[in-house]
Amino acid sequence: MGSTAINPDIASERLTATFDPLELTHLFDGGKERTARRKELEKMLFSDPVFCLRDSIYQSNSELYSATMARSVKLFRLQQEQNWSDEDLMLVLRIIREQHCLSLHHSMFLPAIERLATEEQKERWLPLARRYQMIGTYAQTELGHGTNLMELETTATYDKATDELVLNTPKLSSIKWWPGNLGKSSNYAIVLAHLVVDNKRCGMHPFMVQLRSMVDHTPMPGIKLGVIGQKMGGNFNDNGFLFLNNVRIPRENMLMKNAQLTRTGKFLSSGPNKANYATMIYVRVMICTWTFGALSAAATAAIRYSSVRRQSTLSPGKQESKVLDYQTQQYKLFPALATGYACFFIHKVLSAKYQAMLIDMKSGNAKALPEMHAWSSGMKALLTDIAIYKMEICRRSCGGHGYLRASGISDMVCGATPLATVEGENTVLYLQVARYLVKQIAKALTGQRTTGTTEYMNMNETSYICPLQKPGDCRNVDFLCELYQKRAYRTVLKVAQALQRDMESGKEEAVYMNNNLQPLVRMATAHCYYVAMRNFVDGLASVQVSPPARKVLDKLCCLFGVHYIVTLSGDFLESEAMGLEQLHWLQELELQLLAEIRPDAVTLVDALDFHDETLSSAIGCYDGRAYERLYEAALKEPMNQTEVEPAYDMYLKKLIMEGAQSKL
Amino acid sequence: MGSTAINPDIASERLTATFDPLELTHLFDGGKERTARRKELEKMLFSDPVFCLRDSIYQSNSELYSATMARSVKLFRLQQEQNWSDEDLMLVLRIIREQHCLSLHHSMFLPAIERLATEEQKERWLPLARRYQMIGTYAQTELGHGTNLMELETTATYDKATDELVLNTPKLSSIKWWPGNLGKSSNYAIVLAHLVVDNKRCGMHPFMVQLRSMVDHTPMPGIKLGVIGQKMGGNFNDNGFLFLNNVRIPRENMLMKNAQLTRTGKFLSSGPNKANYATMIYVRVMICTWTFGALSAAATAAIRYSSVRRQSTLSPGKQESKVLDYQTQQYKLFPALATGYACFFIHKVLSAKYQAMLIDMKSGNAKALPEMHAWSSGMKALLTDIAIYKMEICRRSCGGHGYLRASGISDMVCGATPLATVEGENTVLYLQVARYLVKQIAKALTGQRTTGTTEYMNMNETSYICPLQKPGDCRNVDFLCELYQKRAYRTVLKVAQALQRDMESGKEEAVYMNNNLQPLVRMATAHCYYVAMRNFVDGLASVQVSPPARKVLDKLCCLFGVHYIVTLSGDFLESEAMGLEQLHWLQELELQLLAEIRPDAVTLVDALDFHDETLSSAIGCYDGRAYERLYEAALKEPMNQTEVEPAYDMYLKKLIMEGAQSKL
Repeated sequence: MGSTAINPDIASERLTATFDPLELTHLFDGGKERTARRKELEKMLFSDPVFCLRDSIYQSNSELYSATMARSVKLFRLQQEQNWSDEDLMLVLRIIREQHCLSLHHSMFLPAIERLATEEQKERWLPLARRYQMIGTYAQTELGHGTNLMELETTATYDKATDELVLNTPKLSSIKWWPGNLGKSSNYAIVLAHLVVDNKRCGMHPFMVQLRSMVDHTPMPGIKLGVIGQKMGGNFNDNGFLFLNNVRIPRENMLMKNAQLTRTGKFLSSGPNKANYATMIYVRVMICTWTFGALSAAATAAIRYSSVRRQSTLSPGKQESKVLDYQTQQYKLFPALATGYACFFIHKVLSAKYQAMLIDMKSGNAKALPEMHAWSSGMKALLTDIAIYKMEICRRSCGGHGYLRASGISDMVCGATPLATVEGENTVLYLQVARYLVKQIAKALTGQRTTGTTEYMNMNETSYICPLQKPGDCRNVDFLCELYQKRAYRTVLKVAQALQRDMESGKEEAVYMNNNLQPLVRMATAHCYYVAMRNFVDGLASVQVSPPARKVLDKLCCLFGVHYIVTLSGDFLESEAMGLEQLHWLQELELQLLAEIRPDAVTLVDALDFHDETLSSAIGCYDGRAYERLYEAALKEPMNQTEVEPAYDMYLKKLIMEGAQSKL
Repeated sequence: MGSTAINPDIASERLTATFDPLELTHLFDGGKERTARRKELEKMLFSDPVFCLRDSIYQSNSELYSATMARSVKLFRLQQEQNWSDEDLMLVLRIIREQHCLSLHHSMFLPAIERLATEEQKERWLPLARRYQMIGTYAQTELGHGTNLMELETTATYDKATDELVLNTPKLSSIKWWPGNLGKSSNYAIVLAHLVVDNKRCGMHPFMVQLRSMVDHTPMPGIKLGVIGQKMGGNFNDNGFLFLNNVRIPRENMLMKNAQLTRTGKFLSSGPNKANYATMIYVRVMICTWTFGALSAAATAAIRYSSVRRQSTLSPGKQESKVLDYQTQQYKLFPALATGYACFFIHKVLSAKYQAMLIDMKSGNAKALPEMHAWSSGMKALLTDIAIYKMEICRRSCGGHGYLRASGISDMVCGATPLATVEGENTVLYLQVARYLVKQIAKALTGQRTTGTTEYMNMNETSYICPLQKPGDCRNVDFLCELYQKRAYRTVLKVAQALQRDMESGKEEAVYMNNNLQPLVRMATAHCYYVAMRNFVDGLASVQVSPPARKVLDKLCCLFGVHYIVTLSGDFLESEAMGLEQLHWLQELELQLLAEIRPDAVTLVDALDFHDETLSSAIGCYDGRAYERLYEAALKEPMNQTEVEPAYDMYLKKLIMEGAQSKL
């Protein structure tokens, strides 16, 4: 105890590496300079206890909120003092695992003003918001409505007499519910509401509403605010609810870039704004990189712990074996690691495509929008689905200790699982992808050429021959892509044909669409796996690395491809992308790859280079001192500050004493 | 608000039921009288706020512990006053969702004395323990060791001079870590330690150790105790750690039924105790029924909520549709519901077999032990694996609200997930099953008849013809069992042959076993699916129900069988249990069954008859008033008791004010 030595069981792991982890660290950071900058920021931040994250597990929500607010305010002071670039700010937020109280102000409120306000409104609000005088959030979701925006119930009714808009949440189901930083932090919100003029609905629009007094932060008249209560994770965020009861705002507080309301009550709309879609896509692309961070953190903790945990033995009579030496443990952890790496490279490809689209859109070309929408929606849904699943596998691979919050992994899982729900619930997203695919396959079947992610739809299926002709072919990741492609094609085709049949048979659209809803999700998933594999391969090909690093990255990419074919083998057999012989080869290769990756496993997670404080995992620190740190963490539990709990005197003592007396 | 009307969207669901839910309720409870008794106990318990469970989400661990202790003490007073039968006590613990502080005393401490102590020791300890003068736990797991008992590091060294045993946890990794109720509640523990006599190790044995003073509950000399810290769930339980530093106990405190230590230091062992195995099996059988409770609670909350949540529409222009009407939602929830029902019937079969084995063992016949061990281990592992997975699907199907702890489902998931780890980590259990299967297939291949769960190993594979010859055959659950059987047989055979090959090729056992570890897990899983399906079918056949109830239960059983074939289709195709045509029929049938179960969905969860207080789910109550209850729960959050958080005055105010000043 108290020593700072490296656990020899993890030290020995670092001697078997076949590549230099620093090379990959630079790749992840975006260059050597960015790594240096990150380390500089980490050093500065973590020298201040306000930025330390790991002691939060015993705090009440109010204490946690207070500590997070202290961190947030300090952070934005530093940002101003040190004049951080946007890139620096992003880095800092990653370093503190996004644990601050004003995230919506930056991620939603400021961008929404930029996007939705007129120039005059921007001049009015942006300076105040940038100086944190206005602190805002974006209030859209209601207690009774999330996905279907058209049915939101909040109203903004124009009162011509006073030139004001009157906002109301008419029913309990209409109250705003979930917006981050709404409950306690924000003094302003952009509220999404139905504009009503002369008893006519004029669509959903954004309105700037003051929530709290600038003098003492108390709620404004007609406004009732609070937090929505304890969550499974992320309790540092004051996700809130908002009642609006005849709240009056000037007409000029409607954000009027895309639609205007005149003094006389005339409503003008300039139509849907493509920039809104671009923002939605941006967030989905961002989620792919958060997913990379979350899964690779969980893999880091689990793999490091598995290198110091010993249990039973593979060679009777010898010392207990490291659990990482068991094939079953490798089977849990290495596909998770490969999936984490996949998220990085997929995000890289997706992000580049997104940037290219933005440039095109600036010159008026929005042709890439539909594909980018389907692509980003699909990757967000697939990557979050598989990553959250693998994170839970990592957590359970740590046995009982993975259930302790000090292990960090349970908080990682609970913190990541909402990614499947937010910014487009995954099933809803798969259905959006499916809609795009149905259109594309219809094009392809009528002889039009499809391109990009659906280029494969031009395939002539009859000429397909499985590219895996001998076991060695299975290491060719391009061949694996072909299998994914074939599976996607056949699955899409089958569903499209079923829809066509149902349509032609005269069934009602509502009926046949619902009868095929799950097959539509399944076909979108098949497509997304193909895109993910293709993007991983392409992303990997696009980077410059030394041969030893390339070799191990290729193995991870191959494992990713093989693992999901083997796991979902039914789909590949059903679509005749391969036969039983190929399946057998792939099953053998999967186990072979586990053994090949084994010597590099700890170094592959070291390369991700999470700062111990960022990781906040007692079992996953660089030094491998899992037991010491678990014990130290337990000692901080408030119940361990006294020998005897008050509950003894209040209840237990009497039970014990009565037992003693009844003996007499 | 404040009204107690039933939400009409859930009321209408109860009008479409095709069977009487009360009939199934009686089945689950074990008869009409047991249902009446449960309702009587629920009424009595929940009239006392000490038994109410739902306000725990805002309590600190110390507050939660205190409330739980108050409940526990009250409970055991009632037990004594009202002279509850063991059956009543079990029922009460189920009603309060096992949320009490002395569970290990009943589930481990008392049974361990019964099983491991001599008659003389029983006379000494049992009366004290039954009167709650001694409150105990069972301390086995250490910080560094769980599964491999042989390597536990705690020692009990015999000191002949004083006729005492000296207990020590020599290293940090040796401290006892995890035992329930150890940290703060227990004043005694049965400690597992290596007996050391004359510097010789004499194996692991149980020792009765006093932990705390009977006068003031402070730790005894040489003992250091505490809780292990915040967990992902179950924080009402004071899972603890224990250091033993030269703790002296009389020699007579070694529990000596199965091994004795004489005054002269002579060690005598009567060999392994089969009753110990029976106890281990008992706990695994029990976990199957807890799994039933946990999954069916999650399904109840999710299905009820899905009947009152409306979102988007299936028929354009009409009212928003209930989310339960979407095929995708049914696909998430109904297989979960069917799996919950499966757990009930599987437990029923398993429990009857276990009771029969106990009777045999009393007359000296322990022949059934190896199969029961494999059977119970396999069902524990498979049912917890699939149930926890389905519970998380249920939780996510509730969108954002499923992330709120008030929804209850997040606590259900976090509370159930350790079932995969405790009482035999699932991977370890699958490997135990695999070992049994390897022995059995070797028998079968050498012409000996295998019986019971492995009877299928006598199969003549060449004469297998897929029993599904037309779509209608897929509803025959016995046919489905044959497919599961064929898949299990082929998978077991393949691995056994691989092991045989490796063995004959002269590879070291340690090497070839580890090279086949994951295939061994896979083959055990295949076997367990078959046993689960067979047990579900047999359990269902064994009960007397009316034709309408039988019809809907048959559908659930069929859905269970079909769902896992379709989900794991690769394994069934690979083992040639079916072909692509059969897969297609089964895929169609699965969707068809969702539609058929739809009208009964809410009634099928009503039949489980969870008391609202037991369920503790704001979104899952019988009345369907999800939004009202979510809002009411949020109002209880301590942060909502004031308009402005202290963090405003401490931090935020300055940030806002500085912003305002910099404007001047």
